[in-house]
Amino acid sequence: MNLRIVLFYLGRVLGVGAISMVIPLILSLAFGDGSWPHILTAIIIAGVPALALSSRKLRKGNLFAREGYVITALGWILLSMIGALPFYMSGTIPSYIDAVFEVVSGFTTTGSTILTEVEHLGPSLLFWRSFTHWLGGMGVLVLILAILPMSGDSYHMNIMKAESAGPNVSKLVPRLRDTAISLYAIYFVMTILCAASLMLSGMKVLDAFCISFATAGTGGFCILNTGMNTYSTLSQALTTIWMILFGVSFTIYFLMIGKDWKSILKNEELRTYLGIIVVSAVLISFNVFLNSDSELGYFATLHHSFFTVGSIMTTTGFATLDFDLWPQFSKMILLTLMFIGACAGSTGGGIKVARLIILFKQAKKEIHLLFHPKAVRQVQLEGKTVEHSVIRSVNNYMIIYVMVFVASLLIVSLDKFDFATNFSAVAATMNNIGPGFSAVGPYGSYAGFTKISKIVLTADMLAGRLEILPILMLFHKNTWSRHF
Amino acid sequence: MNLRIVLFYLGRVLGVGAISMVIPLILSLAFGDGSWPHILTAIIIAGVPALALSSRKLRKGNLFAREGYVITALGWILLSMIGALPFYMSGTIPSYIDAVFEVVSGFTTTGSTILTEVEHLGPSLLFWRSFTHWLGGMGVLVLILAILPMSGDSYHMNIMKAESAGPNVSKLVPRLRDTAISLYAIYFVMTILCAASLMLSGMKVLDAFCISFATAGTGGFCILNTGMNTYSTLSQALTTIWMILFGVSFTIYFLMIGKDWKSILKNEELRTYLGIIVVSAVLISFNVFLNSDSELGYFATLHHSFFTVGSIMTTTGFATLDFDLWPQFSKMILLTLMFIGACAGSTGGGIKVARLIILFKQAKKEIHLLFHPKAVRQVQLEGKTVEHSVIRSVNNYMIIYVMVFVASLLIVSLDKFDFATNFSAVAATMNNIGPGFSAVGPYGSYAGFTKISKIVLTADMLAGRLEILPILMLFHKNTWSRHF
Repeated sequence: MNLRIVLFYLGRVLGVGAISMVIPLILSLAFGDGSWPHILTAIIIAGVPALALSSRKLRKGNLFAREGYVITALGWILLSMIGALPFYMSGTIPSYIDAVFEVVSGFTTTGSTILTEVEHLGPSLLFWRSFTHWLGGMGVLVLILAILPMSGDSYHMNIMKAESAGPNVSKLVPRLRDTAISLYAIYFVMTILCAASLMLSGMKVLDAFCISFATAGTGGFCILNTGMNTYSTLSQALTTIWMILFGVSFTIYFLMIGKDWKSILKNEELRTYLGIIVVSAVLISFNVFLNSDSELGYFATLHHSFFTVGSIMTTTGFATLDFDLWPQFSKMILLTLMFIGACAGSTGGGIKVARLIILFKQAKKEIHLLFHPKAVRQVQLEGKTVEHSVIRSVNNYMIIYVMVFVASLLIVSLDKFDFATNFSAVAATMNNIGPGFSAVGPYGSYAGFTKISKIVLTADMLAGRLEILPILMLFHKNTWSRHF
Repeated sequence: MNLRIVLFYLGRVLGVGAISMVIPLILSLAFGDGSWPHILTAIIIAGVPALALSSRKLRKGNLFAREGYVITALGWILLSMIGALPFYMSGTIPSYIDAVFEVVSGFTTTGSTILTEVEHLGPSLLFWRSFTHWLGGMGVLVLILAILPMSGDSYHMNIMKAESAGPNVSKLVPRLRDTAISLYAIYFVMTILCAASLMLSGMKVLDAFCISFATAGTGGFCILNTGMNTYSTLSQALTTIWMILFGVSFTIYFLMIGKDWKSILKNEELRTYLGIIVVSAVLISFNVFLNSDSELGYFATLHHSFFTVGSIMTTTGFATLDFDLWPQFSKMILLTLMFIGACAGSTGGGIKVARLIILFKQAKKEIHLLFHPKAVRQVQLEGKTVEHSVIRSVNNYMIIYVMVFVASLLIVSLDKFDFATNFSAVAATMNNIGPGFSAVGPYGSYAGFTKISKIVLTADMLAGRLEILPILMLFHKNTWSRHF
């Protein structure tokens, strides 16, 4: 383990945390909501070690997969522990475990909350809570890679691989730093456009920015007790479109800039993703319209179906109504979408559409081989052969995913809740959605779980966002042995 | 498709069906329960085409994986459709779909029932219902392979592979027919011993045989309305032991006959299987004892925990009490065991312990490779390297398994039941357990589902027992094309 490089990066992560909290600090002073001393304390607690750790110059050194995982896992944990301080110290979230849950839920773009009403946080803390979505969406280490001048692309690539989601992380442009800059540039511009469109639809400035952060990062925190329900139908419809756009792989936007329309049209993951959204939303709209006592007309039902499907599939987790009251069939479609998740290389969570396409094609290939045992056939995605190592890592990911899921479900079941609550709580945290069903439905909260369950669900959120391996590696003996 | 050989085997399957129904026919005449005309009609309906199809001599011909799958799938479907006739014609199960559900549940050793009380069936039909468990447990085609003198081992092996469960079906002895005979001999002797021990513990003769058929096949049908609850604690304890024994791979008993104790002690699947049973039963006993209002003492709770864990893990599905009333943690352990299932090469269902060991070792290997990217490491089971093709087929099985599971859950969710009912109903049928939770709990039944759901769950039972591929193959265009 190359401790020097790990500490260097952890210092930078703390630095980003300290600098990010300057905006809520200013907001607190401007709005006079009284949170500024707590935010300032958190900035100092993050800033001092950040300065101490980053003063040394980064010398060229080994940065293998192992270091990438450790930097990512520890960086995210540290950032969450610091980010939770303003909530804890201000007394708005009296339990530190709850505060960490809430902030991890923010950074991992989950959006699960232990708060039963959010408005008492005040504007500065609400802003900070939503801003964690934006930072976590594209990734704090990708941000550092974009800011930091460095050499040794192949080494630092291991950090990007550890933090980014999807079966096959690669660079958009030859240089890693340029890739990180491009990603953040696209992310930044799209967020601004999202906020502008929401303001034009009648949203207040603070609301528009906070909802845009939550949409861009596919997080799902709202700043009103009534959630997304309060905003106009136009604002909701715009949010639907933006959520779906942020669930698309950023490679697609990069291709757009390069005007490579042909590659975009041929993109299998994009087509599958959009196809699933449309089919699911239409099925749900009919199921809900025909089976519920609601007084909504068909088109209003279709509007809410698209919103909810977009929200769940992209793992954002916004709600315009209590979809826990929908018929069981609609809820099962939503539960399935929770696991499918968004496109690889987007800010969304879940298993990712690309992984499922690879698994599906793998099964198809194997069935073909039953008829032609000697045939040579390869799994292809986007016109390219999927390497054997990628297929293996996808299979491996699914195995570990299921194991972590089952272990979490067992522990959470020690609490007093029913099966629908427990199963959907683990699904909603591990896939970074936010709300689930029953007690953790869109109008419920995670407040009722015991401390142990909250810690497990917090770990699940981190495991889901970082795709398990970085967190798992922290507990592997080889990670800390000297011989490597 | 070699239709000649397919028809030849289907004729034999019908013949086995006709001959098997002779025992209930005799019982019906002896007990005078009035079912004999219906049983006789079913015998004739199965017997006539059986004679017609089997009169021709089997010439040597191609019997590839495809033919093996088709023979198995169609054979099981035909047998179920014939086996359901006595229930339907006698009016004891007025709907034919319900009767097929019940008989498929028998042959696939599931034990899910649409009957709310069973005793009105009368002794002959109760015997037939339980006997389907015994026939289906080891497999009707394996029985035919044992009876039928034939040449061409490598060809007929494809039938055994299609009908037998587990990731890697192989012969116990060099000749296929001898393997089939050995398996049925062990099965027969163990069933007789089981029945004898139950009679010694005080059970009536008919009960002892029916319960032994259900235990040997890991089925779970009872012949009393009160289930296993009525029998003495000794009978229940003996049943626990026999269930666990029938969940063990029959290879182990073959090794015992050869006195190869060393291989038995080293058997990883056996150790894991027994370990999971003990740990689960102990955890459940504490959880139930400490959290329920029941007046049972600790040892009585432990007794019921072992019974239930043995029943669920081996996918038998007997119940001595309503485990749906147990705390959520205990129920989640049971749900996990439903998926794990018994050992490969036993009569039990589920995913199988061997498959999970392979998956677990595969994940461990992949994590090892993250540290040593150039290392060469192989997955080993029982001291032998697991071939790459086996690992691939296990991964493939899991992918298709999940797809079928999700599709079934979605369709079943169109019914009026809650999530726990729907999820556990699909889990309990696909893994061939029998009872699930909530409405389909051990004291509930599958009677409330609509026809569509019953058909889906019936297909799931067949898919689970035959490990999906044979059923899937029926719908694949290549299966029926002439070019193969």
